[in-house]
Amino acid sequence: MNKEQLVSTIKSKKTFLCVGLDTDIKKIPQFLLAEEDPIFAFNKAIIDSTAKYCMAYKPNLAFYESMGLKGMSAFEKTVKYLKSNYPQHFIIADAKRGDIGNTSTMYARSFFEELDVDSLTVAPYMGKDSVSPFLAYEGKWVILLALTSNVGSQDFQLITDNDGTPLFERVMRRAMEWADSEKLMFVVGATQGRMFEKIRQIAPDNFLLVPGVGAQGGSLDEVCKYGLTPDCGLIVNSSRGIIYASADENYAIAAADAAHAVQQQMEAILKNI
Amino acid sequence: MNKEQLVSTIKSKKTFLCVGLDTDIKKIPQFLLAEEDPIFAFNKAIIDSTAKYCMAYKPNLAFYESMGLKGMSAFEKTVKYLKSNYPQHFIIADAKRGDIGNTSTMYARSFFEELDVDSLTVAPYMGKDSVSPFLAYEGKWVILLALTSNVGSQDFQLITDNDGTPLFERVMRRAMEWADSEKLMFVVGATQGRMFEKIRQIAPDNFLLVPGVGAQGGSLDEVCKYGLTPDCGLIVNSSRGIIYASADENYAIAAADAAHAVQQQMEAILKNI
Repeated sequence: MNKEQLVSTIKSKKTFLCVGLDTDIKKIPQFLLAEEDPIFAFNKAIIDSTAKYCMAYKPNLAFYESMGLKGMSAFEKTVKYLKSNYPQHFIIADAKRGDIGNTSTMYARSFFEELDVDSLTVAPYMGKDSVSPFLAYEGKWVILLALTSNVGSQDFQLITDNDGTPLFERVMRRAMEWADSEKLMFVVGATQGRMFEKIRQIAPDNFLLVPGVGAQGGSLDEVCKYGLTPDCGLIVNSSRGIIYASADENYAIAAADAAHAVQQQMEAILKNI
Repeated sequence: MNKEQLVSTIKSKKTFLCVGLDTDIKKIPQFLLAEEDPIFAFNKAIIDSTAKYCMAYKPNLAFYESMGLKGMSAFEKTVKYLKSNYPQHFIIADAKRGDIGNTSTMYARSFFEELDVDSLTVAPYMGKDSVSPFLAYEGKWVILLALTSNVGSQDFQLITDNDGTPLFERVMRRAMEWADSEKLMFVVGATQGRMFEKIRQIAPDNFLLVPGVGAQGGSLDEVCKYGLTPDCGLIVNSSRGIIYASADENYAIAAADAAHAVQQQMEAILKNI
């Protein structure tokens, strides 16, 4: 999916919500455990009920890997289900991969050829040759970690070099030499608040994937105040606040309601750009 | 496996060689494709022929993930085979994971409970709460990326802060506040040569996992000259140079010969500590 299609989807659907499929067998409604594949059954129901209100889904690989082969099978089925039934939805594999060149090439093959997702989150620590294999695919996106939503983001991402430039800025500026805003997004946590102003000075045109609204405490209004561009430029993720809105039989309806509420906030925000 | 056991294994086997199981279906001998599980068949033969000469195995997850469920099944079978047949060998899952706390907890559960490997490579960019869930397991190890073997290591790892301290050093010093040398190792690429002198000033007691000898061009002698400690303190990995020593029917024997040659170098080196 290219940038033009992404912007067009956001504007026509009036939403820039991504639903995070952090599906944990311990948190899904317990009656689903009777299903042959409880994780996929949960994801399918969540997708069917929320698809109208969001433009992207982000399965987090850790949740699937932690269940071994059954988990990975549920992950693959989820991606296939999305591609067959909701081809306009943008799929983000949240895997935070990054390794030496020949290994990143293997990961790129896995995510962009075998699974054929639209985008992958990538960790920057190992530098250019760990990222560039992911940039070799037309219509696919690298979403590079820049300034994350967790407390530990302060440990290294904010270290300033001898010019006073923080590491996350060095990461962004360097990565922008490797690819333009048609292939490169950045992860910036919603908990970073005012930092979005700085981020937009560095990267005025790049889409940002913004986790941390909801359970992690970030504010949608603040993110939009500083982060929004004429193209929207934001994909805001909510995981736990939507998929675990209820643990009862009405879980899918509750998830739809939660997603709808966020979508309405987003529709109001999009009117002003 | 604790540090004492690790040191004792190295000293009694007279080797600190780790064989990297970067098993690529395109590179293994083609007659193995007739096997039900060619990847596992290859790994099993390589393990049986090299176990005598090494003290660790390091499957790189990317190579297994890129083959989908079949690949992940081969990975699990390999770990189980090692645990059943070679329980004294140290198993490193080379996955370079790292995510926000609740996600790293899922990864920790996956690698240290389900698979029960001894150690995992972890990426530091997201800071303390992305690493600490992996440190909560007794007898398990975090192997944190510090100064990697690839060209891209220069992009960010060598950036100096306003005190002149490079990022990799900040990462090491900070991580050493989180765990001692009984649970924490660092990845330092063999291609970094003289930098091992600096690394040993920072972390005199921590084990280092050293990739990059062989195909990537690092020198074992140089690594040992500056990196060796009285406890050895090094696990030196070779992947392609051993497992792809031959693509013929004699591939397992060729791998054993290659591993044996490295082990003999290591035995000579260990005599001097």
